[in-house]
Amino acid sequence: MLVNQQVFRTIWPNIAADKVIATSVSIIDQTQLPHQFRVVTVDHLESMLNCIKTMQVRGAPLIGAAAAYGIALAALISTDQQDLQLAATKLIASRPTAVNLQWAVQRMMNRLLALRPAERVEAAWQEAANICNEDVAQNQAIGQHGLALIQNQYQGKRFNILTHCNAGWLATVDYGTALAPIYTAHDAGLDIHVWVDETRPRNQGASLTAWELGQHGVPHTVICDNAGGHLMQHGQVDMVIVGADRVTANGDVCNKIGTYLKALAAFDNQVPFYAAVPTPTIDWAMHDGREIEIEERSHEEVSIMSGQGADGSVTQIHILPHGPQAAVTRVANPAFDVTPARLVTGIITESGVCPPQQLQTMQRL
Amino acid sequence: MLVNQQVFRTIWPNIAADKVIATSVSIIDQTQLPHQFRVVTVDHLESMLNCIKTMQVRGAPLIGAAAAYGIALAALISTDQQDLQLAATKLIASRPTAVNLQWAVQRMMNRLLALRPAERVEAAWQEAANICNEDVAQNQAIGQHGLALIQNQYQGKRFNILTHCNAGWLATVDYGTALAPIYTAHDAGLDIHVWVDETRPRNQGASLTAWELGQHGVPHTVICDNAGGHLMQHGQVDMVIVGADRVTANGDVCNKIGTYLKALAAFDNQVPFYAAVPTPTIDWAMHDGREIEIEERSHEEVSIMSGQGADGSVTQIHILPHGPQAAVTRVANPAFDVTPARLVTGIITESGVCPPQQLQTMQRL
Repeated sequence: MLVNQQVFRTIWPNIAADKVIATSVSIIDQTQLPHQFRVVTVDHLESMLNCIKTMQVRGAPLIGAAAAYGIALAALISTDQQDLQLAATKLIASRPTAVNLQWAVQRMMNRLLALRPAERVEAAWQEAANICNEDVAQNQAIGQHGLALIQNQYQGKRFNILTHCNAGWLATVDYGTALAPIYTAHDAGLDIHVWVDETRPRNQGASLTAWELGQHGVPHTVICDNAGGHLMQHGQVDMVIVGADRVTANGDVCNKIGTYLKALAAFDNQVPFYAAVPTPTIDWAMHDGREIEIEERSHEEVSIMSGQGADGSVTQIHILPHGPQAAVTRVANPAFDVTPARLVTGIITESGVCPPQQLQTMQRL
Repeated sequence: MLVNQQVFRTIWPNIAADKVIATSVSIIDQTQLPHQFRVVTVDHLESMLNCIKTMQVRGAPLIGAAAAYGIALAALISTDQQDLQLAATKLIASRPTAVNLQWAVQRMMNRLLALRPAERVEAAWQEAANICNEDVAQNQAIGQHGLALIQNQYQGKRFNILTHCNAGWLATVDYGTALAPIYTAHDAGLDIHVWVDETRPRNQGASLTAWELGQHGVPHTVICDNAGGHLMQHGQVDMVIVGADRVTANGDVCNKIGTYLKALAAFDNQVPFYAAVPTPTIDWAMHDGREIEIEERSHEEVSIMSGQGADGSVTQIHILPHGPQAAVTRVANPAFDVTPARLVTGIITESGVCPPQQLQTMQRL
C-alpha cells in the first residue's frame, strides 16, 4: 500500500542489483507509528528476534513472514542443520502464542532440511519470498470477495464501513484482511469512508489503522470505541468488517475485545457484520467460541498510555490513580472476546463469503 | 464520602466559629484527580466562574451548587439588585448547556430579590446550603431505593455492578446518583465490587469513579469500555447502574456515549440494567430519545490524552497521527447516546424504582 505516495510492503529483502541472494531485510518500525515512519534494516537473526519481541513487527501474518526471513538471515551465517535448528527454536520462542510464527518457521525448516547445505541459502530467501507472496495473494482474494459484497450494497454515494482494531496491511505483508475489501473498493473508485474504532487499550485503530488508511488516501474518521452504536442508530454505518484471531467451526468469531459490542449494535440496527479471515484462521477442531480461553494481558496496557509528547518523542503517561498515596484500583484487561455466530452476517475468506452457519459445509467441499 | 479517611462533600462554605455567614467556599479541584487531591478556596465570584469554566467543578448537580455559592459570594460585595443580576448572568453564561446551573441561579435570585437588601447576604448562604442539602437528601433516597434492588438479588457473595462514566459523589454534592446505591450497599455491609468503565474519551471512569470508590474503600476494577460485554457473557456482572443526562417520557435514557452498547450487552445476557436519576432529570416534555440532539464535542478530547507524566505533573500526549507530515485523520466525538427504553430494566429515582414503560403513570400520580 502507499506511504508518502510510494508503494510499500511491511517487509522486504534488500537484494543488490547483480545478486540473487539478499544480505538484509527491511521492516517498518511499527512502535513509532503513527508519529514517525521509520524503516529499519535487519541484517542478523538476533536483530530480527528483537524486532519480533519488541513488536516493531506485529500482526500474525507479518510475524510469520519476519520469522521466515529470520531463518534466511541465519542461513547466511551457517547452513548446518544444528545451527538452523537453533535459529528456529529462538524464533519460535520469540512470541510463543503466535501460530503463524510456528507455521512459517516449520515450513522453512521442512524446505531447507530436504536440501543439501549448499542449496539452502538461495532456497531460504526464495521460500521466505513465497510465504510473503502467498500472504499477499490470499489477502487480495479476500479483497475481491469483499469488494463484491460492497458493490451489492453500494448506491453510488459515500459508503461507510466501521472497523475495529488493526487488521490492515500493517498486520500482514500487504493489503490486510479486514482492510483488504476497503482498499480494493477504494482503488476501484468507490466512495468509501471508514469509521476507525480507537481500540483501547492498545489503540491499534487510532495509531495503525488511521495511519495506514491516511497514507493510502482512504477517507476515515477515528471514533472512541463507545461511539459505534450511536452511529449505527443514526444510519451512519453501512457495513462492519473486522478481522479475527480465530473463527470456530460453528462460526463464532474471536477477535479483539469490544468486537462483540459492535456486533450487538450492528444486529440491533440491521447493519451487516462481516469477519474477514484467511481460511487457516478457521479452527475446525474447536466447535464453538465458548471453548476459547481468553488471554488476560498486562494491566499497564490500560493504566499507561503512549503518545507523542510536547518534545515530539513517544512518551508514556499514567491515566489511573497510582503512586503511594493512591487507594487500590485494580485493572482487568481481557484481550479478546467472542462474537456468537448468530450476530455475524458472513465470513469473508480467500475462497469466498459464507454465512457462519454454513462454514462446516464449506469445509466438506 | 471518604477521602483519606475523612468525610468530605464536593463543596462547602467556610464559616468562622463565631459567625453565621461564610467568607469563602471550598471545592475539590477535579482537574487534578486522580493524581492529586487538592482543595481550592474560592472567595470571589470571579474565582467561582473560573472554577466552573475550567471544570474544577463538574457534574450537573455540583455545578448548580457551585453557582448558588457564586451568588452568595457576590452578595458579600453588593446586595443591589443590579449587581446580583449581573452575577447571575455571568454564572449562567459560564456553562451554557447545564440545566441545573440555570435552575440554581434562578432559585437563588427568586429568593434574594423577594427580600430587602439587608437580609440578602444571610439568606443567600442559607439558600445555597439548602440547595446542597436537598441534593444530598435526594441522592440518599436514590441510594436507599437502589439498595433494595441489590438486596433482592444479593446472595451473600460478592455482587458485581458495572457502571459507565462518573455519576458519583464528585458529580454531585455527595453520594452521587448511579453510585449512591453502591455506596449505600457497601456501607450496609454488602460485598459489592464495581466494574468501572474507563469511559473514553474523557476517562471519567478511570480517573474520577476509580478514585472516589478507592477513597471510600469500595472494591473496584477499571476496564476498557470494550470489555463489559465479554464480562457479561461470562457471568461476571450482576447488575448495571448508570446515571443519565436526560430521561424522556417514554423511558429512553440519554447518557454518556457508550451506554447503549452496555445496555445491548446487558439485555443479551439477561443482566438487569438501571439508570439512577433525580426526577428533575426526567424530561416529560420530550416523548422519546430520538428527539434529543446529541452534542458533538471537541476533537481534542479524542486525539489528546491527559495523565501523569514521569515528573509527576499532569501531561498531555497526542495519540493520533498529527503534525505537518501526517495524512488527514478526522475525528468524530459524539458525547452522548440514547438507550431505548426496551433495553432498560428500571429507572431509580428518589421516589422509587419503576420500569421505563411506566414512567408516565408515575408522572400522573
